[in-house]
Amino acid sequence: MSYRPSPEEFGYTFGGRAPVAKVRPGTIVELFTEDCFGGRVRTVDDLPSQVCEFPYLNPVTGPFHVMGAEPGDTLALHFISITPARDWAVSTTFPHFGALTGTHTTAMLQPPLEERVWRYDLDTAKGVAVYHARNSDYSVELPLDPMHGTVGVAPAANEARMTITPDAHGGNMDTPELRAGVTVYLGVNVAGGLFSIGDGHGRQGHGEVCGTAVEAAMNTVVAVELIKGVATPWPRMEDDLHLMSTGSARPLEDAYRISQHDLVTWTSALTGLDTLDAYQLVSQGGQAPVGNVCDTNYTMVAKLPKSYLGTPAPYESAHSRLRALGAQYEG
Amino acid sequence: MSYRPSPEEFGYTFGGRAPVAKVRPGTIVELFTEDCFGGRVRTVDDLPSQVCEFPYLNPVTGPFHVMGAEPGDTLALHFISITPARDWAVSTTFPHFGALTGTHTTAMLQPPLEERVWRYDLDTAKGVAVYHARNSDYSVELPLDPMHGTVGVAPAANEARMTITPDAHGGNMDTPELRAGVTVYLGVNVAGGLFSIGDGHGRQGHGEVCGTAVEAAMNTVVAVELIKGVATPWPRMEDDLHLMSTGSARPLEDAYRISQHDLVTWTSALTGLDTLDAYQLVSQGGQAPVGNVCDTNYTMVAKLPKSYLGTPAPYESAHSRLRALGAQYEG
Amino acid sequence: MSYRPSPEEFGYTFGGRAPVAKVRPGTIVELFTEDCFGGRVRTVDDLPSQVCEFPYLNPVTGPFHVMGAEPGDTLALHFISITPARDWAVSTTFPHFGALTGTHTTAMLQPPLEERVWRYDLDTAKGVAVYHARNSDYSVELPLDPMHGTVGVAPAANEARMTITPDAHGGNMDTPELRAGVTVYLGVNVAGGLFSIGDGHGRQGHGEVCGTAVEAAMNTVVAVELIKGVATPWPRMEDDLHLMSTGSARPLEDAYRISQHDLVTWTSALTGLDTLDAYQLVSQGGQAPVGNVCDTNYTMVAKLPKSYLGTPAPYESAHSRLRALGAQYEG
Amino acid sequence: MSYRPSPEEFGYTFGGRAPVAKVRPGTIVELFTEDCFGGRVRTVDDLPSQVCEFPYLNPVTGPFHVMGAEPGDTLALHFISITPARDWAVSTTFPHFGALTGTHTTAMLQPPLEERVWRYDLDTAKGVAVYHARNSDYSVELPLDPMHGTVGVAPAANEARMTITPDAHGGNMDTPELRAGVTVYLGVNVAGGLFSIGDGHGRQGHGEVCGTAVEAAMNTVVAVELIKGVATPWPRMEDDLHLMSTGSARPLEDAYRISQHDLVTWTSALTGLDTLDAYQLVSQGGQAPVGNVCDTNYTMVAKLPKSYLGTPAPYESAHSRLRALGAQYEG
Repeated sequence: MSYRPSPEEFGYTFGGRAPVAKVRPGTIVELFTEDCFGGRVRTVDDLPSQVCEFPYLNPVTGPFHVMGAEPGDTLALHFISITPARDWAVSTTFPHFGALTGTHTTAMLQPPLEERVWRYDLDTAKGVAVYHARNSDYSVELPLDPMHGTVGVAPAANEARMTITPDAHGGNMDTPELRAGVTVYLGVNVAGGLFSIGDGHGRQGHGEVCGTAVEAAMNTVVAVELIKGVATPWPRMEDDLHLMSTGSARPLEDAYRISQHDLVTWTSALTGLDTLDAYQLVSQGGQAPVGNVCDTNYTMVAKLPKSYLGTPAPYESAHSRLRALGAQYEG
Repeated sequence: MSYRPSPEEFGYTFGGRAPVAKVRPGTIVELFTEDCFGGRVRTVDDLPSQVCEFPYLNPVTGPFHVMGAEPGDTLALHFISITPARDWAVSTTFPHFGALTGTHTTAMLQPPLEERVWRYDLDTAKGVAVYHARNSDYSVELPLDPMHGTVGVAPAANEARMTITPDAHGGNMDTPELRAGVTVYLGVNVAGGLFSIGDGHGRQGHGEVCGTAVEAAMNTVVAVELIKGVATPWPRMEDDLHLMSTGSARPLEDAYRISQHDLVTWTSALTGLDTLDAYQLVSQGGQAPVGNVCDTNYTMVAKLPKSYLGTPAPYESAHSRLRALGAQYEG
Repeated sequence: MSYRPSPEEFGYTFGGRAPVAKVRPGTIVELFTEDCFGGRVRTVDDLPSQVCEFPYLNPVTGPFHVMGAEPGDTLALHFISITPARDWAVSTTFPHFGALTGTHTTAMLQPPLEERVWRYDLDTAKGVAVYHARNSDYSVELPLDPMHGTVGVAPAANEARMTITPDAHGGNMDTPELRAGVTVYLGVNVAGGLFSIGDGHGRQGHGEVCGTAVEAAMNTVVAVELIKGVATPWPRMEDDLHLMSTGSARPLEDAYRISQHDLVTWTSALTGLDTLDAYQLVSQGGQAPVGNVCDTNYTMVAKLPKSYLGTPAPYESAHSRLRALGAQYEG
Repeated sequence: MSYRPSPEEFGYTFGGRAPVAKVRPGTIVELFTEDCFGGRVRTVDDLPSQVCEFPYLNPVTGPFHVMGAEPGDTLALHFISITPARDWAVSTTFPHFGALTGTHTTAMLQPPLEERVWRYDLDTAKGVAVYHARNSDYSVELPLDPMHGTVGVAPAANEARMTITPDAHGGNMDTPELRAGVTVYLGVNVAGGLFSIGDGHGRQGHGEVCGTAVEAAMNTVVAVELIKGVATPWPRMEDDLHLMSTGSARPLEDAYRISQHDLVTWTSALTGLDTLDAYQLVSQGGQAPVGNVCDTNYTMVAKLPKSYLGTPAPYESAHSRLRALGAQYEG
């Protein structure tokens, strides 16, 4: 199945919207996502505060209704490929947004930082995104590492949340770990789950410190599975070598706590280790890649090599099956 | 106008719901609000985790559509009276909720605290709420000081938020400052504003440290006004002697920052003082009553005696007019 | 006993210094404290960053060795009177300091706020501190409410801490609750306790949002007592009507947690209520006056009317005895 | 030069202590460090709360006086090798310590987690640390990756700080980035700098979530250099491929802010990029390895490949020179 939204079909919330399509578990979906500026920032003279209009920021593609999904189930979304749709991308500062500036909640009396746009050249063949300084001739190639900042489902409790907010339903987690080859597990809160995807990044530093990444439209291929009767409290991820839990909250230590707590309890469930033994193993073997430290909630990932856990097969081996399905598709 | 919701008419979100009634500016509304447990916790044996069902917690009465209200306007809600509807109230601990326990976001591996219910006798004539210890004979009278924990409007950006969350739209701020005699100012985000009210407290300690207050159903009388063309970034309050700004965020210092920042800029606008002169005046004259330190966002209030500002008449003197209207009603 | 330090006798740390004098328990000490700028900011043209030199900020008077004090004991310091020593005081912004600006730890890329000085007239007879705007003619009288921002003892674990930092040893808590009539309880960590006092304020807003209060030199009279064999985990206070616990930490909710936790356990110890019954009573009856939200640690106070606890006589009724001693002195 | 402290020579503070030895710049120092428990936890039955005594935790070796070092200079410590001194190590939970439990500052009413000890077998030949579950037969090899949790100098402002606290002077940063091959840059605050080293870890997960790592005594070889007239605001590190800045504070986002802010300004100084251009480059190219999320301050590292900056030679190429010196030593 292939889906390219028309301009009026983009979504700006998780929840509160009717599905754009229904998909059966086992389906492979090819979709297009616009960048977080809705494609309106195209040159260094397109200041977001002038060409974009709140709340029409961070458009997502979806939501997709997964047939048979009910509260208490888990959606598995395997990202087969994430490919920049254009040969350029942009990044910007934005007034009162970012980690090293006062914001609307970390309210300061200082004037905002200058709003500035950087345009990157993307070369998918060479695998690079080229940075160009604005106030000098300096230029450097950074490795391309495409990912999606935003993926999630309709929240629980009849909520509708802006797509820029990450929380237990997923959303704008902005973690570089969400790249091709990864399976994302999302707990279902409403019938059909209603997943959406957006906010492609050509690459992203840890924490997205200035507030935006190398923002790029993407052509993305996702394989969709449904695990019945298995709940997932916070978004989880799996790649060939690692298990990952996420947490999104403020302050940042709470995002860390949620993600590590989930990884400890998940480890315990997969191995039969008691809670403290699992806590110890995660404490020494675990990683903690930073997601974002700029959004309305911050995001941390807790990550553990699967090799430390014997041969875990979480979610009925969904990752292996989807991996095979993806290989078939690409093959 | 008088409104008492039937059981199925209570709301559990701000936003995402059709109005229960339309009111003209200048109207006085008499309404009933149920307690945060939906009235289901009646004895010390009614544990909330057993008799209540997520997300049907913290019911609100409303939303009310204020005729003529449009985004960019401000609603003024003057609380003429807040009267306990029963001669009892309850308070409880609740697993993974409260400031001195691990929670779903401040995630801990320790088992939750015991869930326990306390039942208070309310004596409105005497003006007391009587505390009874559960594990001893100790009992003491605390002053009755009725207030509403929850008041707000539909959020911006097409969001719908659980009623337990406070944010820029108001919501579950849980501040004891929101008592009778106070006018609350709420920025309008959608046509009609769509205000709702709930979560009455017979009284509340600062921060609601155990997670709940003296939870009580209320008969409340509110006078409604509309200030056209005046925006309000975060909920504000006014009583006969003070101006108040609120902020709701995490960590707690950000709630403090938002509220103080708003009070500084409001002071500057009302007096013509430049920003730093206003900052200085608020720094020495301002108060900072804690709202809640237990909800999904924490709330702080920034409060300044009006006498420090000459004779400010914010919002076209709405408080004075509504005060007079209230006196007439009660008279 | 009377003590007025010569310029080279002021201290800038708690710990790491020899005592300036020894006092017997039961002694009344009359002392002079300089303002936080060492008296160098005298006019609106004296910018602190130019006339003061780090780390010679926030001078304290002391330390005083209390004879017989040993680790595990508690010092009781009863403030008989706190009187401004001059008829003026100053307040300032300071680069990278204050709650509504980026700081050295809440690091921002924005330039610092303007550094500006305000000079207050103090009229102790009339009981006012007069604010004068710098960029307009606006002027207003604020109530005088003298207090000490800084009081503490030598820390545990052989630490020496800058006087601007509040922590378990006391220090720069900057709470307006520390006024005349109050007894402060400080746990002893080293032989003699080694208490110091400084940082008088003519008055202070809640949180000291701009970073400084109405900074004033003080003539202060303190009665000193020693409670043997009673430990105190965090500084506590008592006035005629209230018990108070403090907490100093970051983020602000942790300062709140420490102070409320201590008040709950103290309440439990004084009344025999079990922990949860005490938690409930504090939750409904407790107050939470904000201390500072600008120093290297933030400070919160947890406060409870003694009347809610029957007739508690904490610390062997030290407050009552010291109150009487103070009345005798003043009489 | 070689130094092995006798039991009474270990230090428990940064600052407040006389040097154990003087070293000339250019010296290679071979030293022994004890583990954070002072070597007293040797079996799973040695509970730290029973065999250790506060404040005699986290002993450090030093301080060393570097000849010629004065405030405003920078010490460069290049870690040539870090080798476990025994074939075992331990890790433990500890009451009220760790990220997933209430602590003395994140104060909770829940009882502490169980105190439990794990003993690791270290096999330096094979390069593994072997985890053994306590309540099952589960065992797994984790890669050995030796590092020092604690390195620092005497603090500014006449402070003395417990060795368990990280701050601008270094201290207990607990970052796995501090491994052999790395040069650490520390700003000098007092004559001689007075550096100390301790708290070896066989390996450590990100954040040290349970509060302790694979705690091991170490034989460590360090080359010492002095860069005159160059100040360093927060500890920095350099390896062959990366520049690193650190920040230690609470909440965790402030540790992130400090480290990223320092990396941005350092990048700007090394490349001539203006601040915003450097902010952008760090935002897209930077990493943010978590140090600790359990100590009295949390630590984050900001890390950038040197290749993104052309050919930077920070600190007069100290890393290259020390690297060569180290190779000579090992060769």
